[in-house]
Amino acid sequence: MPHAARRDAVRALLDAEGLDALLVTDLLDVRYLTGFTGSNAAVVVSRAGEDLLCTDGRYRLQAAAQCPDLPVVIDRPSAPAAAASVPTGAGLGYDSATLTVDGLAAVRDAAPGRRLRRAPGLVGRLRQVKDDGEVAAIRAACELADTALRALLDAGGLAPGRTEREVAGDLDDRMRRLGAAGPSFDTILAAGANSAVPHHAPTDAELCRGDLVKIDFGAELDGYHSDTTRTFCLGPAAGWQRELHALVDAAAGAGRAALGGGAGVREVDAAARTVIEKAGYGDEFPHGLGHGVGLAVHEPPWLARTGAGTVPAGAVVTVEPGVYLEGRGGVRIEDTLHVPAGGPAVPLTTLPRDLIEV
Amino acid sequence: MPHAARRDAVRALLDAEGLDALLVTDLLDVRYLTGFTGSNAAVVVSRAGEDLLCTDGRYRLQAAAQCPDLPVVIDRPSAPAAAASVPTGAGLGYDSATLTVDGLAAVRDAAPGRRLRRAPGLVGRLRQVKDDGEVAAIRAACELADTALRALLDAGGLAPGRTEREVAGDLDDRMRRLGAAGPSFDTILAAGANSAVPHHAPTDAELCRGDLVKIDFGAELDGYHSDTTRTFCLGPAAGWQRELHALVDAAAGAGRAALGGGAGVREVDAAARTVIEKAGYGDEFPHGLGHGVGLAVHEPPWLARTGAGTVPAGAVVTVEPGVYLEGRGGVRIEDTLHVPAGGPAVPLTTLPRDLIEV
Repeated sequence: MPHAARRDAVRALLDAEGLDALLVTDLLDVRYLTGFTGSNAAVVVSRAGEDLLCTDGRYRLQAAAQCPDLPVVIDRPSAPAAAASVPTGAGLGYDSATLTVDGLAAVRDAAPGRRLRRAPGLVGRLRQVKDDGEVAAIRAACELADTALRALLDAGGLAPGRTEREVAGDLDDRMRRLGAAGPSFDTILAAGANSAVPHHAPTDAELCRGDLVKIDFGAELDGYHSDTTRTFCLGPAAGWQRELHALVDAAAGAGRAALGGGAGVREVDAAARTVIEKAGYGDEFPHGLGHGVGLAVHEPPWLARTGAGTVPAGAVVTVEPGVYLEGRGGVRIEDTLHVPAGGPAVPLTTLPRDLIEV
Repeated sequence: MPHAARRDAVRALLDAEGLDALLVTDLLDVRYLTGFTGSNAAVVVSRAGEDLLCTDGRYRLQAAAQCPDLPVVIDRPSAPAAAASVPTGAGLGYDSATLTVDGLAAVRDAAPGRRLRRAPGLVGRLRQVKDDGEVAAIRAACELADTALRALLDAGGLAPGRTEREVAGDLDDRMRRLGAAGPSFDTILAAGANSAVPHHAPTDAELCRGDLVKIDFGAELDGYHSDTTRTFCLGPAAGWQRELHALVDAAAGAGRAALGGGAGVREVDAAARTVIEKAGYGDEFPHGLGHGVGLAVHEPPWLARTGAGTVPAGAVVTVEPGVYLEGRGGVRIEDTLHVPAGGPAVPLTTLPRDLIEV
């Protein structure tokens, strides 16, 4: 029962934080700790072991089926109702990173006399370290997504004359037919000058011979996610395209090499960024190097110049440098990697990273 | 330019609220006021007309293209950066319903000396009243979704032996092929006893002859949503199924009849609920009667026993009573309706409401 063990891990953190109980309001934290997947819920984990799940009447049967080992309270709004279950006088931590200002006010009203304390990201800290089942789930999502892109390429799906939207829809369809619940996020498919827009939404623009085509995509499977980016060239690459791709590939390699359990998130970012800066393109890499992947496709740790802390052993993160030349085109290369204890990071994504001319 | 006019409408509210500026942090509010669709942004609307959008480097080109009439600041996190643009001493409202406790702390740190004031739901209040373009967009989404379900029925897609997951995937595919960006939410397809679970996620359970099949689905199109529920019977309906359907149909009719500009949300809920309570099934209708539909598929006004206020003329809302008999089956009937000024509510959903035996 991984969920009960995870709640025990929260209990151990409560001791360390001097809290009697934690009010869990982030829905993915709720899922992580209980298995419950409904759209309205809050959980209390208490040192006394009086854990409970609160949701509303729509989910009565689902909560009973998904959380047979937990008392379920049917009431809404769920966070105040869950907080009211904690004894008066108790020190109750709450996730200030997700609880809204009004949400906290409602908790105060419903649970007066509790000593409310900020405890942001407590469950998120545990979620950074993936267990074997989670790594397997992310690996399966990566393989599914990459299989879908391979099949699209094999079928000639990346070709001049098709629109960005058509190719993105084709890829999404293939992921779903392979069993994905859906894409991990809105698929980014950007051709030609559009590839210089880091987060470009697909348009009706047609792919043209000579275009760089950047594809950033992932699959959701059993609640876990994948995240891959590859940049292709439609036809033989021009010199600048080849050089840009080689630069980003080198940066990605440096980032992957710097990744390991205990590595500083700024240092990993810097390892890749330095390669790009030395080539004179520092300003053309306007985003962080990567992020954790799990129940959320974007979650801690954040590999970024402005990040803090280290990558724990057991994390699953992306490494995704990019260089974007406005009006011309951009290249991003992204893998999702597992960071095992005491060893180099292992890619879970499976596509080759060479510049493929299709 | 509807976005500029909408910001002017916010300005008028600022006067009434005694605020100098509003910090807008909800991403759908941002889209409503500016047209910007990126995943990280904050907007300031000020009485002095010094509006601006703040986002990060990934969206530099997109923000310039989508918001040509607005100054764009590239900085992150975006809410503190946007708040810092407001002069010291100004009264700055923030959306306490979406800003997190930590988010507010970051705003305070970045913008000291501003008089921060809760101003929850100010833009949401405007969003409740749809303009003609918005009603047309929701109508188009409703027609698309309903066309997809009709085509699925015509193709014999609702048949014993198919699984819930297959039929739901089939419906989602059809919506996408008709041009939807995707489903409005995870499609609910629940057969037999599962139909008694209000928010059932599709499983590999096969549909069987004699089952009630509840389908709650919608399409997203141009950022706007639809929401429809119909309950079918696989083969000739048993007496209890027919009676249950007739009861819910009568409740839905009472709800629609009570709907109008200025009607109290509790009164509209009560009109439908009373029908079900009188039949002795009050406890088997464990959710509110409906909700607003727009840029979010679930948004104010909330038609519920615990709701407050009235339905403004111009709103688009659902009416969706249901009765769920645990272990046997459930029926929900849901339409999305426009509430014009001075007239009865007009369904935007187009499917017949009779019990269809397929």
